[in-house]
Amino acid sequence: MKRTEISSLGQFGLIDRLTEDFKSTKHASTILGCGDDAAVIDSGNPEAYTLLTTDLLLEGIDFDLTYFPLKHLGYKAVIRGISDIVAMNGTARQITFSIGVSARFCVENLDELYEGIQRACKDYELDLVGGDTSASLTGLTISITAVGEVKKNRLVRRSGAKPNDLICLTGDLGSAYMGLQLLEREKRVFKGNDNPQPQFAGHEYILRRQLSPEARIDVIESLEKADIVPTSMIDISDGLASEVLQICKSSACGARIYLDKLPIARETNEMADELNADQVVAALNGGEDFELLFTVPLEKKEEISRVGGIDVIGYITAPEQGALLVTPDGSEIALKAQGFKS
Amino acid sequence: MKRTEISSLGQFGLIDRLTEDFKSTKHASTILGCGDDAAVIDSGNPEAYTLLTTDLLLEGIDFDLTYFPLKHLGYKAVIRGISDIVAMNGTARQITFSIGVSARFCVENLDELYEGIQRACKDYELDLVGGDTSASLTGLTISITAVGEVKKNRLVRRSGAKPNDLICLTGDLGSAYMGLQLLEREKRVFKGNDNPQPQFAGHEYILRRQLSPEARIDVIESLEKADIVPTSMIDISDGLASEVLQICKSSACGARIYLDKLPIARETNEMADELNADQVVAALNGGEDFELLFTVPLEKKEEISRVGGIDVIGYITAPEQGALLVTPDGSEIALKAQGFKS
Repeated sequence: MKRTEISSLGQFGLIDRLTEDFKSTKHASTILGCGDDAAVIDSGNPEAYTLLTTDLLLEGIDFDLTYFPLKHLGYKAVIRGISDIVAMNGTARQITFSIGVSARFCVENLDELYEGIQRACKDYELDLVGGDTSASLTGLTISITAVGEVKKNRLVRRSGAKPNDLICLTGDLGSAYMGLQLLEREKRVFKGNDNPQPQFAGHEYILRRQLSPEARIDVIESLEKADIVPTSMIDISDGLASEVLQICKSSACGARIYLDKLPIARETNEMADELNADQVVAALNGGEDFELLFTVPLEKKEEISRVGGIDVIGYITAPEQGALLVTPDGSEIALKAQGFKS
Repeated sequence: MKRTEISSLGQFGLIDRLTEDFKSTKHASTILGCGDDAAVIDSGNPEAYTLLTTDLLLEGIDFDLTYFPLKHLGYKAVIRGISDIVAMNGTARQITFSIGVSARFCVENLDELYEGIQRACKDYELDLVGGDTSASLTGLTISITAVGEVKKNRLVRRSGAKPNDLICLTGDLGSAYMGLQLLEREKRVFKGNDNPQPQFAGHEYILRRQLSPEARIDVIESLEKADIVPTSMIDISDGLASEVLQICKSSACGARIYLDKLPIARETNEMADELNADQVVAALNGGEDFELLFTVPLEKKEEISRVGGIDVIGYITAPEQGALLVTPDGSEIALKAQGFKS
């Protein structure tokens, strides 16, 4: 039998191949299937759609328990789920949480994990309504599903961006990634050290971004108050470059992103300097910021600036122009997705 | 720190402990949370509820790829999900399917898996609307989520059984379990054998029950046609004894199950004889039959017999009488859940 390595397709190529035969849907209630942050289902509510998304997180691949506390892991897994609902301009209401656990874990470990889940459910007003538990031969496996809703006239897909639309971004980029780099450095220092004293002072911001991220439900509320419906939206889970390319692909358009417009926090720059890393790489390819990347028509420019906390980092172009990063000296570099898993 | 082994609680004890703090729900739209086959959500449809269920399946624990073909695994994982929707008297419409895969697997393997998913989607009119893919350090991980709907006046929970209700069962018991025993036997024979010739002739029925199970959507339709709404229902995924106990716990009742009323297929009996196994153990504790166990008021007895394909195997009693198996000589044995994972 022919053997094609999965790595030869890449994650997005694999998803495209596996879901290729599922493009035509059977139910009128399936408004949107695979290929966006969440599926959109018409449950018969005349005013709102149901949103559905799921994530799978595996120990050793998606998280490292040598430095990631279980409580934070529970919290962050929930954030990952609801951020996908937020990216459709919706609000999450219910989650299910499933775990596979090996004998290495005890009940007290799981209590910690669920404490984090509970905290997230409190912070974001979610009900945990189900899940599954299974034994595991190795490590911890997590599956999180989130269900939410969005008013029909406020649904935002990845596919609605049009040339000249402004590309907007909330928060800052690369801080969660630099927090991860710091944790990885301290892990290396720990090894072979009997009395480890991690050097975290002054790095609270980037650590918080990695360990206790937020889902930008506040932005969804601000946009609704300002009566703005983005033409497209996605959350930053795989890194800016990857997300811009997803919008370009779904919307059949190009994009120009300006390097000097990318919001990078002071702490991210400092950590990058300390680690001899490149903050631009962190900003473009570091994932898990869970910020929102969205587009609005050019004429919304002033309204967007009045919302606050949103940077315009570029604009949408015709598809043949490609997705480009423009440097301060005017050079153009093609954006490439180097992510991370989605 | 105190260390309580997970095995000391058992799967159901663990679930009870982890979900204890999630019993009060925050949204009026959460009609039913943890503790049934599926969660029930009011999505704003005046006539129907949304149903949501999720399952996690891990290689080496929930399935063994040395004898379980990937195509069948994909099919069966979907059946597992939608059977939980059926157990609420509902119909599944959408699923998400997530996988974690190690480098042992190639794209062609996943094509096979997805061929099975596609077949199930076709047979049961489902739309695949999402999922996640992740790398894995070891083996294959599957997470399946199913969404469906049920008319509000036809919703059935585990909790509505009343004393004197008849306990009804579709299909037969223990055949999927005996199919598994056969596959395990052939696996042992394969080992150290260069030219294995599995002995499957005459055992097609029990193999089909293990490898290509059905979700009893036909029963849901028959019950609706007959205008019967069960007072409680559950699907047989962990074995009859476990499911009867779940109904008794949720409905705060007892039960009497008659051993000589248990439907056991001829092929199941034959295989049990051949393997020197006990068919009663298979019927009580063998899981994955995906048949429906439900209760109806005594006065529905004739109507139920007219539906066809349904056996009355006992009746509901007061809680202090416990859940009992009654043998032909009149002895009473307390039912115990020895399952299997749910």
